[in-house]
Amino acid sequence: MTRRKIALISTGGTIEKTYDELSGVLANHVSVLDVMLASLELRGVEITRVQLMNKDSLEMTAEEHTLIAETALRLAEEHAGVVIVHGTDRLAVTGHRIVELGTPGAPIVLTGAMRPYELRSTDALQNLTEALLAVQLVTPGVYVAMHNQVLRFPGVIKDRALGTFVKDPA
Amino acid sequence: MTRRKIALISTGGTIEKTYDELSGVLANHVSVLDVMLASLELRGVEITRVQLMNKDSLEMTAEEHTLIAETALRLAEEHAGVVIVHGTDRLAVTGHRIVELGTPGAPIVLTGAMRPYELRSTDALQNLTEALLAVQLVTPGVYVAMHNQVLRFPGVIKDRALGTFVKDPA
Amino acid sequence: MTRRKIALISTGGTIEKTYDELSGVLANHVSVLDVMLASLELRGVEITRVQLMNKDSLEMTAEEHTLIAETALRLAEEHAGVVIVHGTDRLAVTGHRIVELGTPGAPIVLTGAMRPYELRSTDALQNLTEALLAVQLVTPGVYVAMHNQVLRFPGVIKDRALGTFVKDPA
Amino acid sequence: MTRRKIALISTGGTIEKTYDELSGVLANHVSVLDVMLASLELRGVEITRVQLMNKDSLEMTAEEHTLIAETALRLAEEHAGVVIVHGTDRLAVTGHRIVELGTPGAPIVLTGAMRPYELRSTDALQNLTEALLAVQLVTPGVYVAMHNQVLRFPGVIKDRALGTFVKDPA
Repeated sequence: MTRRKIALISTGGTIEKTYDELSGVLANHVSVLDVMLASLELRGVEITRVQLMNKDSLEMTAEEHTLIAETALRLAEEHAGVVIVHGTDRLAVTGHRIVELGTPGAPIVLTGAMRPYELRSTDALQNLTEALLAVQLVTPGVYVAMHNQVLRFPGVIKDRALGTFVKDPA
Repeated sequence: MTRRKIALISTGGTIEKTYDELSGVLANHVSVLDVMLASLELRGVEITRVQLMNKDSLEMTAEEHTLIAETALRLAEEHAGVVIVHGTDRLAVTGHRIVELGTPGAPIVLTGAMRPYELRSTDALQNLTEALLAVQLVTPGVYVAMHNQVLRFPGVIKDRALGTFVKDPA
Repeated sequence: MTRRKIALISTGGTIEKTYDELSGVLANHVSVLDVMLASLELRGVEITRVQLMNKDSLEMTAEEHTLIAETALRLAEEHAGVVIVHGTDRLAVTGHRIVELGTPGAPIVLTGAMRPYELRSTDALQNLTEALLAVQLVTPGVYVAMHNQVLRFPGVIKDRALGTFVKDPA
Repeated sequence: MTRRKIALISTGGTIEKTYDELSGVLANHVSVLDVMLASLELRGVEITRVQLMNKDSLEMTAEEHTLIAETALRLAEEHAGVVIVHGTDRLAVTGHRIVELGTPGAPIVLTGAMRPYELRSTDALQNLTEALLAVQLVTPGVYVAMHNQVLRFPGVIKDRALGTFVKDPA
């Protein structure tokens, strides 16, 4: 059985937020991505971890969106696919930036979460599971995989009221 | 088998905080106490629920501390015990206020949590379990039950560095 | 946003086993599939539930394998895809039976679990998540989706030592 | 803050059963007690672990009940309390055996579970929490702490229909 070599870029976002007892808030300090990965049975992929940053995407600069996009495109040349864990608020900015900068030779799949992994009611494991499967099944291109659907960039936006991603009707 | 009639006063605090997807913060809006109670097997007590308020104890006024104290003392006359779920930051203020206002005829046990029930790593269930058992075993008086220990008022303070309650060494 | 109409056939297996306190064993009595579905955010599919049976696949008769296969092929004519929840021990028997009986007009994806949903360490949610995503992404045919990989029938067998499915090297 | 020195004797039972993927059954092989202890915040006690055996109590011999009883009585001389984790089916046999063999100088509290720790719906953490608190609050004697009640031996029996312990009405 040959496993696909996948690069997993982590950038932070709600999915990786942990709870600080003293301040009583959820913030991006330590990555819980490895805990999540350990809880899944991954027979299809062999993962290379790339920890690029760990921040709320609302605080990302234009340079950081570009850095993530360029890193993903470069890794897509040497891997069978790339998964990016990203804050949902600016996930679409990074998705469109990748499309602007190049045409990837392998699938690049972004994902995130509306509720941190630390919560009982998290959607983090579902979304990470979906991204790690979708990256094996779709054709080269840029996608978001989350909440049981895979959408292709460009033309993807976050619907704040629904708390998920949709195709831009415009 | 006779079950002890216990009054359970909820006032809010970290233990009851839930996650708001839109704002991304943990806040006191709906009570998760009933969900917690449903997950426990309670053979020893018969609970009367008294929802007094649902707020972060840092925002409690002096009048509210007095209201909680008076309510607890009144309920202690008609019940075999009283449990109060309370924010930990000002839990000791309410505990000392009860002691100032009267001598209860039944045990009054305060409890809370450092990490909300909604978190995987919560201490809420442990502390609620302990309060509901301690109230059956201790003599009339005012106590905090949390983190595997029962401490009697007066002279109890929150140790912020340890994230728990201790006897005031002063 | 148009959601794909998916038929979800449940047949039992480890994934649906629940714990009986009196006998102390895990068995197939009530379906926990609806609890699992409620814990996922399903934006891509609209599910029609078909509860065919609830049994350990080791106890399935040849007639029952055929019944499942015929039901799946029939439902594949009226739906955009079919997911079958199945015990892993005989999952490959049903998969091959479908291939023998016809060529589906839509994807048919089988899945199951090595550890029941009731266990903390279950793989049930991961596998159900994968089946419900794969059925939207693959071409018409018969597959198993589990443990982060999607394998196409025929030629799929359960590797008992690994506790997962692999392509038959023969 | 002085923590009470407590001996924790583990003997097996449902509370410690783990799942074997190959056979599909829950059995006593490895102890999950340390995992449970790590998930609790224990400020009141300092625990000495004594792993005596790990078996279903239905398989305990008379000699084994006596061994547990004698071990508990001996440890009660050097500790502020003793907690025994035990299968519920024969828990009362061991409880009565301790009472027959001696009068402990410290509280001895037995506990167990109806549903293994490995299950989402376990009562193991609740019962362990209760035993570790009760042992600090009750007077010297032999007790079972479980399901929010503390009952004193002799005269305690398991009510199989209720799935809990009660005082023998006889």
